[in-house]
Amino acid sequence: MEFTVNQIAAMLGGTVEGNGSLKIKMLAKIQEAKPGQIAFLSNPRYENYIYTTGASAVIVSKQFIPRKPLTTTLIRVDDPYSSFTLLLEEYHKLISFQKSGIEEPSFIGANCTVGKNIYRGAFSYIGNNVTLGDNVKVYPQTFIGDNVVIGNNVILHPGVKLYAGTRIGNNCVIHSGTVIGSDGFGFAPQPDGTYKTIPQLGNVIIEDDVVIGANTVIDCATLMGDSTIIRKGVKLDNLIQVAHNVEIGRNTVIAAQTGISGSTKIGENNVIAGQVGIAGHLVIANNTSIGAQSGISKSIREEGQKILGYPAFDIKEYFRAYSVFKKLPSLSYRLRKLEEAVYGHKASAVSDNAHSEENLNE
Amino acid sequence: MEFTVNQIAAMLGGTVEGNGSLKIKMLAKIQEAKPGQIAFLSNPRYENYIYTTGASAVIVSKQFIPRKPLTTTLIRVDDPYSSFTLLLEEYHKLISFQKSGIEEPSFIGANCTVGKNIYRGAFSYIGNNVTLGDNVKVYPQTFIGDNVVIGNNVILHPGVKLYAGTRIGNNCVIHSGTVIGSDGFGFAPQPDGTYKTIPQLGNVIIEDDVVIGANTVIDCATLMGDSTIIRKGVKLDNLIQVAHNVEIGRNTVIAAQTGISGSTKIGENNVIAGQVGIAGHLVIANNTSIGAQSGISKSIREEGQKILGYPAFDIKEYFRAYSVFKKLPSLSYRLRKLEEAVYGHKASAVSDNAHSEENLNE
Amino acid sequence: MEFTVNQIAAMLGGTVEGNGSLKIKMLAKIQEAKPGQIAFLSNPRYENYIYTTGASAVIVSKQFIPRKPLTTTLIRVDDPYSSFTLLLEEYHKLISFQKSGIEEPSFIGANCTVGKNIYRGAFSYIGNNVTLGDNVKVYPQTFIGDNVVIGNNVILHPGVKLYAGTRIGNNCVIHSGTVIGSDGFGFAPQPDGTYKTIPQLGNVIIEDDVVIGANTVIDCATLMGDSTIIRKGVKLDNLIQVAHNVEIGRNTVIAAQTGISGSTKIGENNVIAGQVGIAGHLVIANNTSIGAQSGISKSIREEGQKILGYPAFDIKEYFRAYSVFKKLPSLSYRLRKLEEAVYGHKASAVSDNAHSEENLNE
Repeated sequence: MEFTVNQIAAMLGGTVEGNGSLKIKMLAKIQEAKPGQIAFLSNPRYENYIYTTGASAVIVSKQFIPRKPLTTTLIRVDDPYSSFTLLLEEYHKLISFQKSGIEEPSFIGANCTVGKNIYRGAFSYIGNNVTLGDNVKVYPQTFIGDNVVIGNNVILHPGVKLYAGTRIGNNCVIHSGTVIGSDGFGFAPQPDGTYKTIPQLGNVIIEDDVVIGANTVIDCATLMGDSTIIRKGVKLDNLIQVAHNVEIGRNTVIAAQTGISGSTKIGENNVIAGQVGIAGHLVIANNTSIGAQSGISKSIREEGQKILGYPAFDIKEYFRAYSVFKKLPSLSYRLRKLEEAVYGHKASAVSDNAHSEENLNE
Repeated sequence: MEFTVNQIAAMLGGTVEGNGSLKIKMLAKIQEAKPGQIAFLSNPRYENYIYTTGASAVIVSKQFIPRKPLTTTLIRVDDPYSSFTLLLEEYHKLISFQKSGIEEPSFIGANCTVGKNIYRGAFSYIGNNVTLGDNVKVYPQTFIGDNVVIGNNVILHPGVKLYAGTRIGNNCVIHSGTVIGSDGFGFAPQPDGTYKTIPQLGNVIIEDDVVIGANTVIDCATLMGDSTIIRKGVKLDNLIQVAHNVEIGRNTVIAAQTGISGSTKIGENNVIAGQVGIAGHLVIANNTSIGAQSGISKSIREEGQKILGYPAFDIKEYFRAYSVFKKLPSLSYRLRKLEEAVYGHKASAVSDNAHSEENLNE
Repeated sequence: MEFTVNQIAAMLGGTVEGNGSLKIKMLAKIQEAKPGQIAFLSNPRYENYIYTTGASAVIVSKQFIPRKPLTTTLIRVDDPYSSFTLLLEEYHKLISFQKSGIEEPSFIGANCTVGKNIYRGAFSYIGNNVTLGDNVKVYPQTFIGDNVVIGNNVILHPGVKLYAGTRIGNNCVIHSGTVIGSDGFGFAPQPDGTYKTIPQLGNVIIEDDVVIGANTVIDCATLMGDSTIIRKGVKLDNLIQVAHNVEIGRNTVIAAQTGISGSTKIGENNVIAGQVGIAGHLVIANNTSIGAQSGISKSIREEGQKILGYPAFDIKEYFRAYSVFKKLPSLSYRLRKLEEAVYGHKASAVSDNAHSEENLNE
């Protein structure tokens, strides 16, 4: 990118003090910025840097009164922090979508419909009957199978693999190495101990505004006409496993290395931490919060719970139980001492075995 | 695919009632089927759909007696459900193996032997001295290293990576992004705290009828001449880690995100759930069933056990212990109350620390 | 490779007995070796094989006195085992770095600087302003984004993806499918329940002597100018998740499927087992050893600890607590019996509920 200070000030609704025709190529922290870069000053603790910064321009508050002479140009705004964040977002969008055109060699099959301002990187592969909307960026070595449909403003990072029939909405980002539409893990046991493959004929639907990390896998649904569905606004991290026929509700966020087994339906606005395992055929209510490494073996029907454990239950109760778990050797010792006190010495020594049979029937 | 109703009836050993020359392109559920599609009716609960279905043909039982007029053609068979399943399997096979020929650009090295009816997708790479059997489908962006040998009827989905020397049997399917033959994780600690790489010179052998999911990794064996071995009929899900020198016995099924450490030998007909971790140099007996997220730190010598936990033990005992774990704060409280009752008030307050030393020597 | 026995003896500082002009192409075990191969004899238990081996040469100790006639040539050294290990390492290096030149089609952008003895495999992609040192091996289907800098003697196995701006030192090996520099998982919750993407503008720095397994993911840092850093000598296994702004200290070794959350700093010479989960914003001291599947939810400040559990604590204490956990049903039963003895029959039946309120305030 390259903008003048005046252009940036106009974008932010700010006013310029100094040379507004200077060119800005990058954003930087005030203590590290160099000529051609723009920084911001919000926290007064950083004020000293503004008198020595190399930045061509600094975004400051309308109320800022310099205590020393300045060499940098100022852009005055209401809230320097949000203005800078806005610039970062715009900058990120610009660099994310800057690639365009077709690099060769790349492959595209028959009967494809392709929108405006597309990037098709070298060694990318697009099958037959594929539809791509506007501003779709297909990075190098990406695979798009037959009959895939992709909306507008979608970025497929290098090496993404979309199996035939996958559907992706608008404004989605999928990171490198992620596989969408691979076969569900379905095998029918046979009398001789072998397994027969259950054909996996459904697809995957990714709705709008979904972000998916790197090396994640989403399997297709089993039956023809069925779909594994990732709803609008879902954010998935890296190395996640989403099995066949799973549905993930709107605005649910899932951290890395979590796995969701077949046919489970996850509600909206869940926050699921990393390395969680969720069994198959469950229903998880809206607004559930699941702690890292938890194992979910039963449906969660009540909304808004925070759970942890293996299997998971209420997170506060888990930590209370776990704090006693750490002291179990001491508890066990105290119990034996009590038994000796109550029953007489050594009476308890055989109790473990003596009661084990009854125990089974508790 | 495109078959006439008569052709499908012949394949199923069924009889046609209606127009047998209609063309069928797809399978569908009876409630959703359109012209050109075939459905089935097995469960009487769905009978009403047959009078309104758009399907060109419906597979029904020989005993089926319509209660209303029909517009669809019937194929009568003994068991409509299994006939439809058979059709699904045939359809799946057809679409799986339908790609053939060579897309350009693709790369093939010197001295390769290639069977009949091969597909080599664009940007696929085949090294030197590679042998491919008949009906091998090498999808785009797949890598096959030098000296790899692959049997008949093998599908390598887009982006599979086979390191040099890998051997794959017949009727195998490997999904996108899976890596086979990468270096085992072997490093020798040096006196200065650094690690020296232990050369990994073995390979991976995949026997017949193995299915491997997406983004799974199988490392090669350490020593030249040794192999990491996946036996006949094994099914591996997505994102699984199989370390160097592991052997997985026949017809064992392993769910997603499970990891198996170096040199462990897993028996036949195991059922291993997701996110299980198995330590190195263990032996797991045949017919073992391991629950999700379990940690296996010792060999399992007795066949047919069902285990769970971290470390894992008998699954029923685990759940019994875990049900008490949840009540530990209450148990702890009751134990203290008992101590007060038996020893006198506050006597137990110091017991945790008082006995901790002895505890270490229990 | 192809060397004469004399050349190998010179490399090992050994002396030849027999035909030093024989050609050696491979290393093998003494019991399996064929003509053209070299083996070693160290353990006297294997001595019998030396009289029948097909090996062209065998490395033996200076002290070895044959008890029968030999047909193989000998190389006498001080320590046959270390000499053979050295040969294995040299052989491994040779085959690892043997590929060179440019296979077509491959892609390279503008303004790239490329060292000597490079391999650029077919379908590899190198963006603009990329710097590659000497002996860099870019295997097929690898992606190197704009502005990436790579040192000398680096191997990028097939399908590695390096996002723009990644920096890699000398003597690194990265295995297939690994993704470096993907976006950190950062989303700001909005009042309407949706999430806004926090731009990820930093990069990843990999220092010298780092080895990374297959299908691992390392995210970039969030802020421009910041880096996720993997220090010198670190070894990472397969399918590991390293989140944004993580730093992994020198010579730390991490096994497969472990995940490290954002901004955590891991010390030097840690040994972290497989499937461990480490929460965000923590500090882990040097020389920490973390057992498999552990969950780390708090910083570890004291060096040299060995921990395990979920959350993790001292490994010996964990196992002691866990051994009692297994007996919890029996403990619970014994506690009830004691209550009956002390309080009178059935007195304890209501204790769980009666005290639950107080419990919360313990």
